[in-house]
Amino acid sequence: MDVVAQMKKFVEPKSVAIVGVPRSPMVIHGMAIDVLTNLINYGYQGKIYPIHPKTSEVRGLKTYATIADAPGDIDLAVINLPRELVPGVVKECVDKGIKAVTIVTQGFTDADDEKGKQLQREIDEVIRGTDTKVLGPNTFGTANAYIKFSSSYAAAEMEEVPVGLVCQSGPFFAGVGNLKLLGKGIDLGNGTDIHFGDALEYFEQDADTKVLAMHIEGMKDASGFLKQVGQVARKKPVVVLKTGRTEQGARAAQSHTGSLTGKNEIWDAAFKQAGVIKVNDVEEFGDTVKAFYTLPLMKGRRIGVVTTTGGFGVMGVDACQRSGLEVAKLSPTTVNRLSAIYPSWQNACNPADVWPASLVGKKPLFEVLDVSVRALLDDLGVDAVLCITGAVFTHDLLQLIEGVTKSHPDKPLVFCLIGPCKDGVKNKLEGSGNILTFSSPDRAIMTLGHLADYSESCVRC
Amino acid sequence: MDVVAQMKKFVEPKSVAIVGVPRSPMVIHGMAIDVLTNLINYGYQGKIYPIHPKTSEVRGLKTYATIADAPGDIDLAVINLPRELVPGVVKECVDKGIKAVTIVTQGFTDADDEKGKQLQREIDEVIRGTDTKVLGPNTFGTANAYIKFSSSYAAAEMEEVPVGLVCQSGPFFAGVGNLKLLGKGIDLGNGTDIHFGDALEYFEQDADTKVLAMHIEGMKDASGFLKQVGQVARKKPVVVLKTGRTEQGARAAQSHTGSLTGKNEIWDAAFKQAGVIKVNDVEEFGDTVKAFYTLPLMKGRRIGVVTTTGGFGVMGVDACQRSGLEVAKLSPTTVNRLSAIYPSWQNACNPADVWPASLVGKKPLFEVLDVSVRALLDDLGVDAVLCITGAVFTHDLLQLIEGVTKSHPDKPLVFCLIGPCKDGVKNKLEGSGNILTFSSPDRAIMTLGHLADYSESCVRC
Repeated sequence: MDVVAQMKKFVEPKSVAIVGVPRSPMVIHGMAIDVLTNLINYGYQGKIYPIHPKTSEVRGLKTYATIADAPGDIDLAVINLPRELVPGVVKECVDKGIKAVTIVTQGFTDADDEKGKQLQREIDEVIRGTDTKVLGPNTFGTANAYIKFSSSYAAAEMEEVPVGLVCQSGPFFAGVGNLKLLGKGIDLGNGTDIHFGDALEYFEQDADTKVLAMHIEGMKDASGFLKQVGQVARKKPVVVLKTGRTEQGARAAQSHTGSLTGKNEIWDAAFKQAGVIKVNDVEEFGDTVKAFYTLPLMKGRRIGVVTTTGGFGVMGVDACQRSGLEVAKLSPTTVNRLSAIYPSWQNACNPADVWPASLVGKKPLFEVLDVSVRALLDDLGVDAVLCITGAVFTHDLLQLIEGVTKSHPDKPLVFCLIGPCKDGVKNKLEGSGNILTFSSPDRAIMTLGHLADYSESCVRC
Repeated sequence: MDVVAQMKKFVEPKSVAIVGVPRSPMVIHGMAIDVLTNLINYGYQGKIYPIHPKTSEVRGLKTYATIADAPGDIDLAVINLPRELVPGVVKECVDKGIKAVTIVTQGFTDADDEKGKQLQREIDEVIRGTDTKVLGPNTFGTANAYIKFSSSYAAAEMEEVPVGLVCQSGPFFAGVGNLKLLGKGIDLGNGTDIHFGDALEYFEQDADTKVLAMHIEGMKDASGFLKQVGQVARKKPVVVLKTGRTEQGARAAQSHTGSLTGKNEIWDAAFKQAGVIKVNDVEEFGDTVKAFYTLPLMKGRRIGVVTTTGGFGVMGVDACQRSGLEVAKLSPTTVNRLSAIYPSWQNACNPADVWPASLVGKKPLFEVLDVSVRALLDDLGVDAVLCITGAVFTHDLLQLIEGVTKSHPDKPLVFCLIGPCKDGVKNKLEGSGNILTFSSPDRAIMTLGHLADYSESCVRC
């Protein structure tokens, strides 16, 4: 069976059998840890077949004693049973002609005992030579905001963002901080049958997916993966968080998903070669993925900085150099526009420090900020603008953002919000146009650096 | 006059004259940009002398036409006038016998014109050979939460935290993110007369200050500073954010405060030698400063990790190695305690992954988390514990934190909260005991790394 068609069974199932449906699910502080409850709550419109040997109904749905008893075609079976029972049920799925089986259960190659490995071999044996593929074991499975589906027993945070998430750890389904990564998601778990390559092939062709977000602990066929991911990266940005990077981290990964992690330096060089964007921690992962679906790409590497505080402007400049970005040289026109509002003793330059014009020149601070942001965005020698300010002008900032993201749709604008700033303000600002906000100049600039790197490698392909 | 006595005039003034009090202050979205309004709002109990040549009252306080007219002793004069008028008013301060003068005004060595430098020379001339010292120009001045005082025209975010802030950029008075850095603060501005050394000498002896937070762009006498800061660091942790680290950043700093920044590598080596904690951005600055006044020091470098997700545990381990920390080897007792609740196929080790015991072992997840955190904190081979979890158990976590920070007051406990987490939850958890929360394992571990570095250098002195 063709890989994409098979992956669609996992990510876009029209019908799903759930094997292992507790009569009363575990509840953690009001949240049911239960695939079926979640599917009902999401509003999934596909057909659901709960499999239960001893009851006729759960959560208001008719149950079936076995997979074989379920009527009609089943795209996907999700198994969450004690590990000893899993190989037998996989066999039932094969017999039923189910092409996609997600094994949620832990305790196979991720276990520390011989029995886990034995059970995995039994599963391998059952599916050998068949059209049935297994995702996992030890996985949240798949998620798809566009059809309100996820096989995760923990409620997935979904929104129709154009992100294809591939991970080896379920909690990414919850997003990173307040940032949603689903979109669509595939948790490979132990990755014994469905691999990174299968996920790549699916997301490469998926029209809903504009950015790939990959969390990688390790894999068996790294060289095949790298070749393939390089091809995908020519079409869509691929952001990778590689963990298990240190010797001890690799050992921990081995115990988590049974993955081989490989040498750090080799991965780094290979990612660069492949045009993949490598990030270093979960926060950078979330920021960068969001940047790729929120901001336009960059035409060059020249950054303009507008700041209400010289000290943070200095940090922005430091960060530019670290990320291989240039501090833009302002055009004479821009210099004139700034000079018109600056005190006589201040040369207009980049970073554009707006404070003196307000404090000394007695001009309303936001007015100076507004003029400066527009001037730098208008400057053909500026490829992106970082605006550093307190979040005190929320209302005015909203209007500025709304205006300039319309007038300059092709130039990234990001903000560093200094001082106390509530989540609500951040979300409000980000909702008013295609901008991002950060809490340090360094994080803002690092994100623009990734954007510039990808834009550049795009030009090369 | 002795340096500490003089610095007390700046930081602990009993009386303050404010020169340059607008009749109606600039208001930015409801916030008055005005020293006097702020002092009244803070509830400063010292004597305030507003100086105004043309009116008899501002904000309900009697004004005086000149500094000379103000009755009684004045500890501190704060000048916020057009720059041309400043040297003359400094002369009036000298004549009145005022020992501490803060010049808020911009446009001296920070200006791009010759006139600014000339005006600075005039000020230097006026104070030469007198007992009067000048803070700034181009400064927010000083702040002191303990007496509800700040000369900042932007309202300072103060709380009686044991932090002595020394900076070259006013916005640090607003804190970093939601973290307050005042305590007590000295913004050196251009640093023409009051230098880092003076601030160090003050905070070294100040009983309210347990941690020094220093933002440094550059300075003239780096070698003298490094010798002195090394002495202070033996008594109190000194956390330094050095900016102007790159060539272009250095140029921006020159234009911001007129500072000489110096070679990056030399600073790094010197900070290490001096036992100073160097951080790389504002977020790390805030985290690290807060850690030093919130968490106990560490007896060693061995970290225990408890995690609801193996994938994030791997990141925690990676981060340990990057920060020069060790992943603790658990004692047989701890292994037994964990094994008692783990499924048979899971070896108890570090990171302690609590998920299988809940998912497979059907134990309430929080119960497993709770047992594991306590077991690792009890382990004599563990010097600090990182707990990685979703913030879904708020109520239970509050109780856990309250309990274990009492029973283990000498062992740092930090949390990485995964998935969506509101500011309110973070603040609530941090309010329930001496713990910190972070949004990535990397940031949590980096902070513990700084703690361990300082603890170690303390042992050496």
